[in-house]
This record gives sequence, structure tokens and C-alpha cells, in this order.
Amino acid sequence: MGVLGAKGKVGQAICKGVEDAADLELVATVDKDERIDAFVTSGTQVVVDFTNPDVVMGNLEFLVRNGIHAVVGTTGFDEERLEQVRGWVAESPGTGVLIAPNFAIGAVLSMRFAQAAARFFDSVEVIELHHPNKLDAPSGTAYRTAALIAEARAAAGVGRSPDATATELDGARGADVDGVRVHSVRLAGLVAHQEILLGTQGETLTIRHDSIDRTSFVPGVLLGVREIGARPGLTVGIDPLLNF
Amino acid sequence: MGVLGAKGKVGQAICKGVEDAADLELVATVDKDERIDAFVTSGTQVVVDFTNPDVVMGNLEFLVRNGIHAVVGTTGFDEERLEQVRGWVAESPGTGVLIAPNFAIGAVLSMRFAQAAARFFDSVEVIELHHPNKLDAPSGTAYRTAALIAEARAAAGVGRSPDATATELDGARGADVDGVRVHSVRLAGLVAHQEILLGTQGETLTIRHDSIDRTSFVPGVLLGVREIGARPGLTVGIDPLLNF
Amino acid sequence: MGVLGAKGKVGQAICKGVEDAADLELVATVDKDERIDAFVTSGTQVVVDFTNPDVVMGNLEFLVRNGIHAVVGTTGFDEERLEQVRGWVAESPGTGVLIAPNFAIGAVLSMRFAQAAARFFDSVEVIELHHPNKLDAPSGTAYRTAALIAEARAAAGVGRSPDATATELDGARGADVDGVRVHSVRLAGLVAHQEILLGTQGETLTIRHDSIDRTSFVPGVLLGVREIGARPGLTVGIDPLLNF
Amino acid sequence: MGVLGAKGKVGQAICKGVEDAADLELVATVDKDERIDAFVTSGTQVVVDFTNPDVVMGNLEFLVRNGIHAVVGTTGFDEERLEQVRGWVAESPGTGVLIAPNFAIGAVLSMRFAQAAARFFDSVEVIELHHPNKLDAPSGTAYRTAALIAEARAAAGVGRSPDATATELDGARGADVDGVRVHSVRLAGLVAHQEILLGTQGETLTIRHDSIDRTSFVPGVLLGVREIGARPGLTVGIDPLLNF
Repeated sequence: MGVLGAKGKVGQAICKGVEDAADLELVATVDKDERIDAFVTSGTQVVVDFTNPDVVMGNLEFLVRNGIHAVVGTTGFDEERLEQVRGWVAESPGTGVLIAPNFAIGAVLSMRFAQAAARFFDSVEVIELHHPNKLDAPSGTAYRTAALIAEARAAAGVGRSPDATATELDGARGADVDGVRVHSVRLAGLVAHQEILLGTQGETLTIRHDSIDRTSFVPGVLLGVREIGARPGLTVGIDPLLNF
Repeated sequence: MGVLGAKGKVGQAICKGVEDAADLELVATVDKDERIDAFVTSGTQVVVDFTNPDVVMGNLEFLVRNGIHAVVGTTGFDEERLEQVRGWVAESPGTGVLIAPNFAIGAVLSMRFAQAAARFFDSVEVIELHHPNKLDAPSGTAYRTAALIAEARAAAGVGRSPDATATELDGARGADVDGVRVHSVRLAGLVAHQEILLGTQGETLTIRHDSIDRTSFVPGVLLGVREIGARPGLTVGIDPLLNF
Repeated sequence: MGVLGAKGKVGQAICKGVEDAADLELVATVDKDERIDAFVTSGTQVVVDFTNPDVVMGNLEFLVRNGIHAVVGTTGFDEERLEQVRGWVAESPGTGVLIAPNFAIGAVLSMRFAQAAARFFDSVEVIELHHPNKLDAPSGTAYRTAALIAEARAAAGVGRSPDATATELDGARGADVDGVRVHSVRLAGLVAHQEILLGTQGETLTIRHDSIDRTSFVPGVLLGVREIGARPGLTVGIDPLLNF
Repeated sequence: MGVLGAKGKVGQAICKGVEDAADLELVATVDKDERIDAFVTSGTQVVVDFTNPDVVMGNLEFLVRNGIHAVVGTTGFDEERLEQVRGWVAESPGTGVLIAPNFAIGAVLSMRFAQAAARFFDSVEVIELHHPNKLDAPSGTAYRTAALIAEARAAAGVGRSPDATATELDGARGADVDGVRVHSVRLAGLVAHQEILLGTQGETLTIRHDSIDRTSFVPGVLLGVREIGARPGLTVGIDPLLNF
């Protein structure tokens, strides 16, 4: 396999991850101002792209046309860009492209589990906890988690979580995202954490995700590298690789 | 719907649960020394059976032959008994029987989630925490959870969790269930709790189930009552109702 | 020892606790419409009073005048009432009275620990989690905990917890109690729980209290019974018995 | 203030911490092969020493003789060395030396809280969780925590935690440290974590410490720097600074 943007922080973490993996071999790396056709001459089968929105489309067109599978963490993919990628892979049957906004397996699984469980519990709330330098509250992930939970409950005809609160100090019950309460904790010593609490008569189920390190995307990227060869066409998000 | 064994502790909790549910109506209850055909004369559609192994087969034969769906929490079903039930429902098309060893939705989901996630993480361990009067360690649920995790990892070709322990005080690293470490805490003030910890580079996922009340089976029983009409034949375990 | 209000729910739990304790003996119990001098004739040394504000002052006067120590969980003690009790014990040297609003040892200790730790951490927040039938948010205990934390930090000259939040969905960051953020979760399947989170560079300290049973006051009451004989005069709150 | 061993990993983290602290100023730093009298000529009041056992005694003798307070995280202090330091400070009245094996405030407080609470609960157990490269199980901190808990309970005449376990899979109930059960979890994605669980009738108290970063000693070192000037003589451990 190969890495585009190999000298960036993310690229370095991926190269390190490949080195530690017994079943993968790093054949070629390309950084800016280096020639991408190194992947062709070296016979690279899968390339990871964590570059930037300005160059990623050029990279992808090149890779797909040369029948090289791609695993992409670069941001900035809207429906128009995805459609263009779909066009390229249609013309290169057997080539797979995985584009994902979030490669942290634990984060993605916890969202899916919450979605699957949401309709079986009377109550659901979300607590997210981050370092105090975070600018937005709630986090984008917590907002999305709550929205997915609300959607799953609505689809199953489940009503709002019961709540008899009659006297509330402003803000105590958290933010309301489509009827799901979300609480944002900001604390020195934390990195990025999220807890989904589900409760019904006599029992609770808690799904907690802790990310304490900026390299938590690496296992998800390597999973993509291992599986994309068997998934021709465009795959969006790592969820299908997790069998959800 | 109706309840068999309505005056037992479990039966009472179920009757109370039905009362609190807007969409269910308690039509008839039968206790020992009472006539089971009250369900027929009252036109009961679904009957819940939490009785005992001595009488449950007679109950089930009667219910199925009369086209009444059954939701059964009574223990003691081996393969022979299940086969007999399959025979009865085969002769009464459209009638459904649900037999489940565990109706606690949170417990069942947490096991399923652990099974689904196990192969994507380097490490998995299980901690179960119970009141100090418990006789066995680990709990049956923890043992089974660990075995399911081990099975899922083996099927995916994932090796043992990494562990560099060189010096161990006897027992510190817990019990070994098919390669998965299980730790049993016994503490006054607890009831029944279980935590499945999954970890990979930079992130962990924790699935925790807390059961603080002997009535945590009620929501699962009511789920069974609501859905068994749409599932003719024999269903074992509530997992299929949870879409797993 | 003896119990006033022995037939109430609380009284029964205390009587049961005494029975289970090897070092305590239940000498006499008195309920309403029964004669309180049973404690004198039986030679009772300590009496527990969980009655009601209407009768508690009469009970206390009687007990103190007869040199019987008292452990009181009845509510409604304002400064005026406490002053009156102080007067009675001053006239009965050697007699001790313990009046406490909260006998749950874990709850009281967690508050004290939070107070002691608050000034050494950059950040402190409080999460309280209760059953969905609770009327107020935050809970009285959480409010008081946050106020004590704020007081301890102010006394030590510690500023507010850092918080860079620039975009907040209304309520996400919780309620503000004297500068300390408090989050209230309401969830089916919970009883009464509180978590105090303290964080500084690279580490966090979490103090969690779980109360899952209405009888969690019993060990604190028995502690009071054992120790009040050695504490003549009026003691308010169980904190001094916990060496804080 | 000044730093000895300023270019080492630890020294750099401390220098960074001082820079971020509004009330402290870094006057001088000395690394190996540099002259320690820079602290005298610069008028440094407090010096932090994270060097190594070979040079620390020479450093300390020099600092104390020059009336400079010292905060020492270097290891290897046995009773003989401590006695020698006591001799030096006795001859230099007003000079303070703080020598501590652990500067992580959260870790030290959690141990103290556990010790203070241990005698009020029927049950106590310890769970420690670390990265899978750790060689010993349990961790030294967990071992010491359990031993302190056992000591506190013995001193108060409290017996062993209740435990009805009759059938145990080898190791399930953890290691036994003076009668206190300790469980060691090893999991990828973790750093260093410890949970002390205390339980009594109807309630539990959990004290959890999470250290996710090798720099968690910095706030404790800075606390030492701020307070050592007011504590002439030798102080061992940061506990006295935390008012325990």
C-alpha cells in the first residue's frame, strides 16, 4: 500500500501503523511536490489519502484511472464531489474508493449501537466531555448522535423520554436536540469522550467512547486498506465495513 | 393479553407493567389451581407464562392448540422440549411462541454489541460487579459474554488481547474464559452490573449494563407480547425482536 | 437502643439494620399513640427519632431530660430549634444529640472530598442523575455540592474553570451555580446518582456516589448510635463522625 | 524559580508549566555539564530537581547550604538519604525541601480519600486499568492503595468485605492484598487509571483517577514550588500540601 501526504502528522501516524501491522507493507509514499506516479511504477494496490480538499480530487482521478484502490480521510466531500468519484469508479470496474468523515471505529460503533438500541428504552440522554479549549457545545458528534437517536425513535413511534421536571435552574437539563437531551462537560485533563445513556424499568445501558489520542483514526484506516479491495465502487463512511 | 402465574412475584410485576402500558389490556389471569381455559373463554390473544418447569409444557400445549400466542420466561427448556414445542406450532399455523432465558433488553443488547464490536479492537476484557451474596464468580452472564466475544474474535481471525504482564500477584489479571479476561467484583450496595471494555490505538469503547431492580425483565416481556403475533412458529431468545 | 416511629418505613429499615448488627441490641420501640417512657423503664441508652416535625421537639426534650442520647433524622430543624436543643443538652451534661439532614455516608463523604479537592484542580463540574419523576433540576444535593465547591475555590483564590465555548446550543453547558457547572440527567432505570469531575493537566479525579435503595441512610444512623455516647452536646450533621 | 535537568522530558514539561503560570517566573535552568551556581548568581528562590539518584544528593546539599528551597521528584530516597537531608536543613533554618515519589495530585488525593472512607463501608475493592505494555499486575499504586485501605480498616476494627463466593473460576475474584481484592485490566487505548469502589447498604462510593498524559505531575510540582517557602525543613510526599 501507499500513503499520500506521508509527511504530515496524520500521514506519519498511518505509516507508523502500517509498519506495526504484520499483514501490510508500505510500498510507496508521496508528499507534496513529489510525483504521484510512484504508486503506478511501484505496483501499489491501495493508497491512503489524508491530504487537503484542493488536491484530493486530482489524486483520486489519477488513482482510480490506474486501478488503484483509495482510502480517503481528506475532508470537503459534498454530494457533487461524491457524484464525480462515482463516475470515475464506474469507468474503472473493480476499483474501490472509501471516503469517510470519521475513521475512529469506537466512535462510529457507539453511534450505531445507540441508534439500534434507542427504540427499546424509555429514556435516552447524551453526555459529551471534552477539553476546555473546545469552541462548540455540544460537539458535532454529540449533536449527530442525538439526531440519529431521535430519528430512530421517531421511526419506531417511540415518544419523548419521560421528564417530570417542574423547577429547573436554567440549563440544568442540557440542550434539546430533536427531543434528546445533550450535556456538554468541559474539563481540563480530558480529550474527547461521549456517553450515551439509555434507561428503562430497572435497568440502564451505557455506551461510552473515550478518545485520548489524535491517532485513534489509524485502526479504522488500516481496516479500510484491508477491505477496500473487496468493495468495488464508492463506499461512504466506514459503517459498511463494520457490518452495519 | 393474559398472565399465567399472575400471583407470583414475577407475575405481579408483569401485571403492573401491563397496567402502565397504554396499548395493552389485561384480559385474564390464571394462577395455580385456576382453570387455564379462562384464556379461551375470554378471547385472550397472547399469554405470558412465568410458571415452573413442571407445568409449563402442559400450558404451552393448551395455548398453542387454541391458537393463543405465548411468551415464556419459565426455565428448563432443553433441545427436546424445544423440539416438542416446534411440533405443536407446526400444527397450529399462525401461532407464535417466544421462549427466552433472559428478557432484560439491556443485558441482551450489550452482549450483542460486544459480539459485533469484538473483532475490531486489539483488546477486550469484561468486568462484572454484583452484590456480595452471589455464589458464583464470574456470573453466568459474564462467562457467556466472554465466550461469545472469544468466538467472534476467533471467527474473524483476531488473536488474543496483548498483555505484557511479567509479574502477577495471583489472580490480579482475572479469570481466563477462552482467552478473554473476566474480573468479578463483589460489593455491598450493588445489584447486577457488567462492563465490557474494548480498546484499540488511542480509543476505548465501553458497554455497561446496570440492573438495579428485579423487574428489569418487564419491558422485554411486553416487547414480546407486542411482537409475537407477527412471528408465527418458535422464537428462542429476544434477540430476533431486537433485530440482531 | 430504641427506635421512635418504629412502624414507619424508615423505622422498619432501622430496626432491621439493628437486628443485622452484632454489636447493637433493640431494647424498646415506640410508635405514635405509644408511651415514650418505655425507653426509661427499659433502660435504653440511645434512641433514634425518625418521626415528624410536630412531635420531634417533645420527644427530644423528654429524652435529653432523662439522659438518653438521641440520633435524629426528622426534618424541620431551623436555627431556633437547634438553639433550644442546645439549651436542653447544656442542662443534661454527658447527653449527646445528633441531628442530621442526610445520613447517607457515601453522599456526605463525596461532598466533603469534593470540597477538599476543589482548589487543586483547574476545572470542576457536577453531573447528577436521577429517575425521571424528580421535580427539581438540579437536585438539592447537587446544588449544595456545587455551592460548597465554589466556596472552597473562592477561599483559596482559585478562579473559574476554563471554558472556551464560543457557540453553545442553549443549555448544553448546564446550569451555573456560583460559577460551577451542574448537569442534570433524568433517566428511567436510575435512582439517585452524582458525579463530581475534577480535572487538571493530564489527569482527572472523579467522585461518584450511587444510591440505589431508600435504605442507604441505615449505616449512617447506626454509626450515629455507636458514636453519640462519646459526643456530649449537640452535633449537627454526620460529618464530624466521619472525621471531617 | 529554577529547574535542574531542564532539558530532559520531565524538565521540559515543568518549564512549559511555569511559562503558563502567571504567578511563577523561570529565572534559571541548569542541565548536566552546566554550573549549578547559576541559581545563586540569579537569586533563584526555589529549584525543582528531576535529575537522577547519582547527582541529586550533591544538588540538594548545594541548594540547602545556599538557602534555596528545593522540590524534588528524583527517585532513590531511602531513610538514610532522607536523614542526611534532614541534617542539612537543620543547619539552614528557614530552608524547605519537598521530596515526593508521586506529584500527581489526583492520584495522591484518591489514595487519601480511600483511606479516609475505607472504615465506613462494608466492602472495598480496587480496579486498576493500564495499557497492555505494563509489566506488573497489580500496579504499584494499586498495591499501595489496597494496603493503605486494609490498614485503615484494621485500625478501625472493620472486618473483611463480605463475599459469599462458593464457586470461582481461578482468578475471577482478583488478587488479595491484605484482604482487599485488586483487579488489573490491561487494555489497548488506556494509559493509567484506578477505581476504588466502596459499598454499603443501598449505596456505593467510587473514587476514580485517570491519568492520560505523562505530564500529570506538573500541577503538583508547581504546587510544591508555591508552598515550599512556607514549610521549612523536610517534607516527604505532597500529602501535607493537600491538607491530609
